[in-house]
Amino acid sequence: MANTSLEAPWVPITRRKQGDRDACIPTQWHIPSLYLPKDPPRFEDGLQSVLDVPSKILSQEEIKITEDYTVATLLEAISRKTFSTEKVIDAFCHRAAVAHQLTNCLTEPLFMQAAERARFLDQYLEEHGSTLGPLHGLPVSVKDTFDIKGVDSSTGLAALCFKPADKNAPLVDLLLSLGAVILAKTNVPQALSSLDSINNVFGRTMNPANRLCTAGGSSGGEGVMVAMKGSLVGFGTDLGGSVRIPAMANGVYSFKPSNLRLPYGGQAVLVTEGTSRLGVQPVAGPLARSIDDINFVMQELVPRASLWGEDCVFGEYAQGHLQGAGPDGEVVIGVLRCDGNCTLLPPVDQILSEVASSLKQHPNIKVVEVSTPTAWTQSQSTMSKLMGIDGGVLMGKLLDSMQEPLVPWMQSRFRISKPCPLTEVTQLQTRRAELENEMLQIWSEVDKYGRRTRKLDAIICPVAPHPVPEIERYDALGYTSSFVMFDYPAGTIPIRDVVEQDLHLGQPFEGESLSSWDDSCRALWDEKTVNRKVYLGTPLSVQVVVPRLEDEKLGRVMALIDGVVKGRSTSPKLPE
Amino acid sequence: MANTSLEAPWVPITRRKQGDRDACIPTQWHIPSLYLPKDPPRFEDGLQSVLDVPSKILSQEEIKITEDYTVATLLEAISRKTFSTEKVIDAFCHRAAVAHQLTNCLTEPLFMQAAERARFLDQYLEEHGSTLGPLHGLPVSVKDTFDIKGVDSSTGLAALCFKPADKNAPLVDLLLSLGAVILAKTNVPQALSSLDSINNVFGRTMNPANRLCTAGGSSGGEGVMVAMKGSLVGFGTDLGGSVRIPAMANGVYSFKPSNLRLPYGGQAVLVTEGTSRLGVQPVAGPLARSIDDINFVMQELVPRASLWGEDCVFGEYAQGHLQGAGPDGEVVIGVLRCDGNCTLLPPVDQILSEVASSLKQHPNIKVVEVSTPTAWTQSQSTMSKLMGIDGGVLMGKLLDSMQEPLVPWMQSRFRISKPCPLTEVTQLQTRRAELENEMLQIWSEVDKYGRRTRKLDAIICPVAPHPVPEIERYDALGYTSSFVMFDYPAGTIPIRDVVEQDLHLGQPFEGESLSSWDDSCRALWDEKTVNRKVYLGTPLSVQVVVPRLEDEKLGRVMALIDGVVKGRSTSPKLPE
Repeated sequence: MANTSLEAPWVPITRRKQGDRDACIPTQWHIPSLYLPKDPPRFEDGLQSVLDVPSKILSQEEIKITEDYTVATLLEAISRKTFSTEKVIDAFCHRAAVAHQLTNCLTEPLFMQAAERARFLDQYLEEHGSTLGPLHGLPVSVKDTFDIKGVDSSTGLAALCFKPADKNAPLVDLLLSLGAVILAKTNVPQALSSLDSINNVFGRTMNPANRLCTAGGSSGGEGVMVAMKGSLVGFGTDLGGSVRIPAMANGVYSFKPSNLRLPYGGQAVLVTEGTSRLGVQPVAGPLARSIDDINFVMQELVPRASLWGEDCVFGEYAQGHLQGAGPDGEVVIGVLRCDGNCTLLPPVDQILSEVASSLKQHPNIKVVEVSTPTAWTQSQSTMSKLMGIDGGVLMGKLLDSMQEPLVPWMQSRFRISKPCPLTEVTQLQTRRAELENEMLQIWSEVDKYGRRTRKLDAIICPVAPHPVPEIERYDALGYTSSFVMFDYPAGTIPIRDVVEQDLHLGQPFEGESLSSWDDSCRALWDEKTVNRKVYLGTPLSVQVVVPRLEDEKLGRVMALIDGVVKGRSTSPKLPE
Repeated sequence: MANTSLEAPWVPITRRKQGDRDACIPTQWHIPSLYLPKDPPRFEDGLQSVLDVPSKILSQEEIKITEDYTVATLLEAISRKTFSTEKVIDAFCHRAAVAHQLTNCLTEPLFMQAAERARFLDQYLEEHGSTLGPLHGLPVSVKDTFDIKGVDSSTGLAALCFKPADKNAPLVDLLLSLGAVILAKTNVPQALSSLDSINNVFGRTMNPANRLCTAGGSSGGEGVMVAMKGSLVGFGTDLGGSVRIPAMANGVYSFKPSNLRLPYGGQAVLVTEGTSRLGVQPVAGPLARSIDDINFVMQELVPRASLWGEDCVFGEYAQGHLQGAGPDGEVVIGVLRCDGNCTLLPPVDQILSEVASSLKQHPNIKVVEVSTPTAWTQSQSTMSKLMGIDGGVLMGKLLDSMQEPLVPWMQSRFRISKPCPLTEVTQLQTRRAELENEMLQIWSEVDKYGRRTRKLDAIICPVAPHPVPEIERYDALGYTSSFVMFDYPAGTIPIRDVVEQDLHLGQPFEGESLSSWDDSCRALWDEKTVNRKVYLGTPLSVQVVVPRLEDEKLGRVMALIDGVVKGRSTSPKLPE
């Protein structure tokens, strides 16, 4: 008792919150300590992967349920009563509990609620002879920021603990109305700002493929949960890259839609309300194990989103024939490499070339190199300013009120300032419109009579200029944040892991550094500042981007590219 | 010479500008003074229509060309060389010149440029054996705010005269790339603010059906130009109702799209640049003689808009079967009457009932009365504030710099204040999101399992609570401005003219006035403050509204409603 009076207010709150979280993990799911990795992770201890631990702990049936199904086949199995929803949800919750003990990926385990809902769904199916909806029984996780009635959206801030939401976020309601089951909420960085998912309340989420490298952020818990197969689909939010970066870090697929496609409301309030309408609007998006899983879910969500979110519009989202912009209907894919702010590290350049080379083999795909548009380079500075127009005022208050310290990444980067004056914001938005207009030009060509035609269907580019970096070393947001500023839908596809050969690709840094971001980036490949072996076994991904609101097209292009690269679609026929 | 030194700077600029404008009307097109209406118009002089004057002046062939064709049939006639583009454009320019002399609707007659372009198009057709594009030869007019290279976008402000634009607005470029010909730019109110199109430089545009009533604004010149058949399609812009109100005043059709459908860039800058991104974004939209003409043009523009405007996205826009939200696929149309701020005057309530009654006869349409959503009532005050966040600072400078006086309507309404602080704008946008969410609820219904389905396809409602008022008496913006704040596509359909019988519909103002807007509105039907006979022969219209970005659906619903009301489509088959 004597001690607690000396503690800052955030400390006892954290203790209580962690206690409550631990209590949500049933005792029978606690894992033997021999499976727990050593903390802190050390390079000398060799490969730091925990990816295969769940298969040593789960039953054969649990392994089958959580590993062998896609969204489509699992939902079919449930609707045919091959498995009850209860059995499916129990298997996934068990796996999520194991994943959490290995990586610290959860903030709010909702296993009891999920089991209860599963029984309700089984009963519904029994009574009605049909499923509640097209996602009946789907095991889903969501980032901690999404409100769920009766559950905190603390985002790891002490000031927001024990303040349960009074209603569901519209996306949560939409998922539930279709029959999905939410298993848990997942961890995020302090203030959603760093690209390592660490905060004072819940601690750090670890990358399961390599605990020395970052799990990414801000939807870091989601990336890990999906990679560990604790859920089949996860939902994060993305402003600077917060869905795509953890997907890249954990080697899963992700999809950052345009604005207006999925409801974003009902999020933890960390900046002054209304700010995003004046600056840049973050978006919600899924992470999953395959593009087919993502497309399955988007196909159900997108056409219904406008019934749920005032920030959504009706949109089609179907798979089908992809009519390309090429003269004979070929799909034309542009390759964008360096953004002009950060040099591409060799494995990232290499993976783009490998993908481009695979795509070139396909008779219905045309690949063109696109030179870096100035607007892409310059977008980063405008985007940075637009992300900060509220001056961090509300976040500062939240931290101060509990005397919470900044986490390491934030210490050199978080500053509170006055909200930007209206006249400055109008200038930023004017500049943004100019940049959007310049960027627009890459998609079309003009003839001598001034007639324009579309010339590119999609572009592929890096997710980051570097492979998955070590903890606390992720800095280069520009490759992801720009496509939120432009509101271009952008997804990520994991291609392959880093192999020994990649480590010898050299150090082609002949010119001067492009920026201070580039200094940090180059240091990630400089043998004076990194042991490149740390990258072995971490995933390399590419990003696929299309113009604003062409989300349906992005889904089709990603399926096409993924099929070609993974060798599943080499026939001249495009996917129908 | 002596006198000029005593003049305020705007006066000689205006004189010179008007002189230049007059010089653009070829002498052979000057009309005999016997056709010119008396100024000012007086009630005692009887019906003040000039609509039939052009037919007394034009040649038989000119009358045929300008009156007997739709967009589709005229373009077909040109492509088959029934008429040369030069002949078509000459006929329309002549008619536009006549219209202008009768109503003062033009700011920038571009007859010479149009004739030159027509010759180029004829030559292109001759050389290539095909048209330049799908709008080859279409005679179009645009509101003065659209930039055209080498032409002023003065909007009737002396400070902006003799400052020609250095490039075309994207919508202008898009129209030209498809083969359209721009005949003229058209008049607007000072600061685009009042709903009478009057300014110091160009004077007042008169309503051709009844010179005692307003021509509407801010796209007033467009409304008149299209009603006088001086162009086949006109383009205006709409924030408070500036496309729909002049369409209603002049009895033509209009379509205010959602944001992202037609490029809005390249407009005269009258508020601080970037402001609309923080407040509410105005949109560009067409006015025409029929919904078919509007749909024809939209079908060509919408799918191409994203190649031209960074503020546009790819969208389909086709006519075809309309699958409704009703249980058997019926189209469900809601009727919204009073907005809660202004009582409907009897003829407006009557016209809604007439339309609803016609629609009810159609076997594939279901009509439901919708009670006024609180959000609709409350939107007006939030929208008013959002429209004024820049405090009128730039407009004040533009007027001051030339010592321009305010026009009468503005004198009691225009105030310069400081730009709104960022924190207030965030509050307004937060409030807007709440209102949007409340408004969303009218479109769907929820079952006991929380599943939502669409229940309404479209709503019909008034354009204004009153018929076309006398000059200077238009005040009630709420019925139009709200659908810009909600970003709902909204179009207007002229139904019929006011007839003697309407004048005896009584004065059902039993309750208290709803607002100060309602005071002005009620005064428009109170025989102490108006002679109702002034409304005889003015058009009554309805507004049709659908959810955000469902522009294609709006086009189809408007065609359906128009067909039913005008008795063209009473068969059970919906338009295919």
